[in-house]
Amino acid sequence: MELPSKLLENAVEEIARLPGIGKRTALRLALHLLKRPETDTEALATALTTLRKEILFCQSCKGLSDKSICDICASPKRERNILCVVEDIRDVMAIENTGQFMGLYHVLGGVISPIDGIGPQDLHIDTLVERVQKEATEEVIFALSATLEADTTTFYIHKHIAPYGVKTSTIARGIPVGDELEYTDEVTLGRSILARIPFDEN
Amino acid sequence: MELPSKLLENAVEEIARLPGIGKRTALRLALHLLKRPETDTEALATALTTLRKEILFCQSCKGLSDKSICDICASPKRERNILCVVEDIRDVMAIENTGQFMGLYHVLGGVISPIDGIGPQDLHIDTLVERVQKEATEEVIFALSATLEADTTTFYIHKHIAPYGVKTSTIARGIPVGDELEYTDEVTLGRSILARIPFDEN
Repeated sequence: MELPSKLLENAVEEIARLPGIGKRTALRLALHLLKRPETDTEALATALTTLRKEILFCQSCKGLSDKSICDICASPKRERNILCVVEDIRDVMAIENTGQFMGLYHVLGGVISPIDGIGPQDLHIDTLVERVQKEATEEVIFALSATLEADTTTFYIHKHIAPYGVKTSTIARGIPVGDELEYTDEVTLGRSILARIPFDEN
Repeated sequence: MELPSKLLENAVEEIARLPGIGKRTALRLALHLLKRPETDTEALATALTTLRKEILFCQSCKGLSDKSICDICASPKRERNILCVVEDIRDVMAIENTGQFMGLYHVLGGVISPIDGIGPQDLHIDTLVERVQKEATEEVIFALSATLEADTTTFYIHKHIAPYGVKTSTIARGIPVGDELEYTDEVTLGRSILARIPFDEN
């Protein structure tokens, strides 16, 4: 794709570095910005650089925040003895939306993935161990994806926090509510039989 | 979707104003930028603002360019008596890729579309009429989309340049090369019969 302008080419290349955006889409977006008032482009550029420069990570849970302690960690209404370990801020938002969890979070920032060069030291695992050690944590819930990397991460963290006598659990894996049994993949179905729940617990 | 940070919310809103990008994708892109080095975000923001501020429109064809006269208009190899009218720079690129056209272009910047509030005065039609009047143009080829708005635009321009005795044509509408007849929509098929080409012209 030969572009008639170096400026346009540069912009297209930068946009196309974003995940899931190819050169064609990048060109469409760049041309869209050129059709809109200059203030639109400035607002976008400022919003991105300000976000990148000024965003804070909550000193306690390591989630994104505008303050040094996020609203959830600062709230007196949350149960402080139960920690939910998640991969990123989107997972916090998803769990908050359920309204089923009133404890605190700990955001890892990813999962251990040797293929991508992500080791335990690249994640907020040290600070999690420290929290378990210093705060009055009684239970740690792992709410990670159902992948091999996430399972590895769970085992790794479990090994490091077990000495502090804290209860650990993972969120239930099973058939999604509303799904039909015959269309469920065999691994999920197999696991859901192994992890069957006694009827009177429901 | 309630975000834990105003800065993030602002960035997501600005990204989601781009066409075809929803709030979820915008959040994914913003979080991606936060995981990458700060220089990445700066490079993207600078590329966008520089593009918007410094891009020039070729004084002759009104296409995007880094110079006041674009490479195509400045080239001594192009036939200067034949103008191809297109909607935007992507069409110029598409036609250049075919290698079948050696004349000059005129970029309208859109088509007449009363629903979107785009009238003839919002497009580079005046300058096209001026070029036809002043330059040694012999033929104007309309290479616009096969839509009602594009047809309206063609008729409007044709009416304004006809007095200067210039030859006009539109690119052929018909069955795309490689397509099967039975799957072609009836309008295209109908038009391709009406606009049939005598066999010895091929």
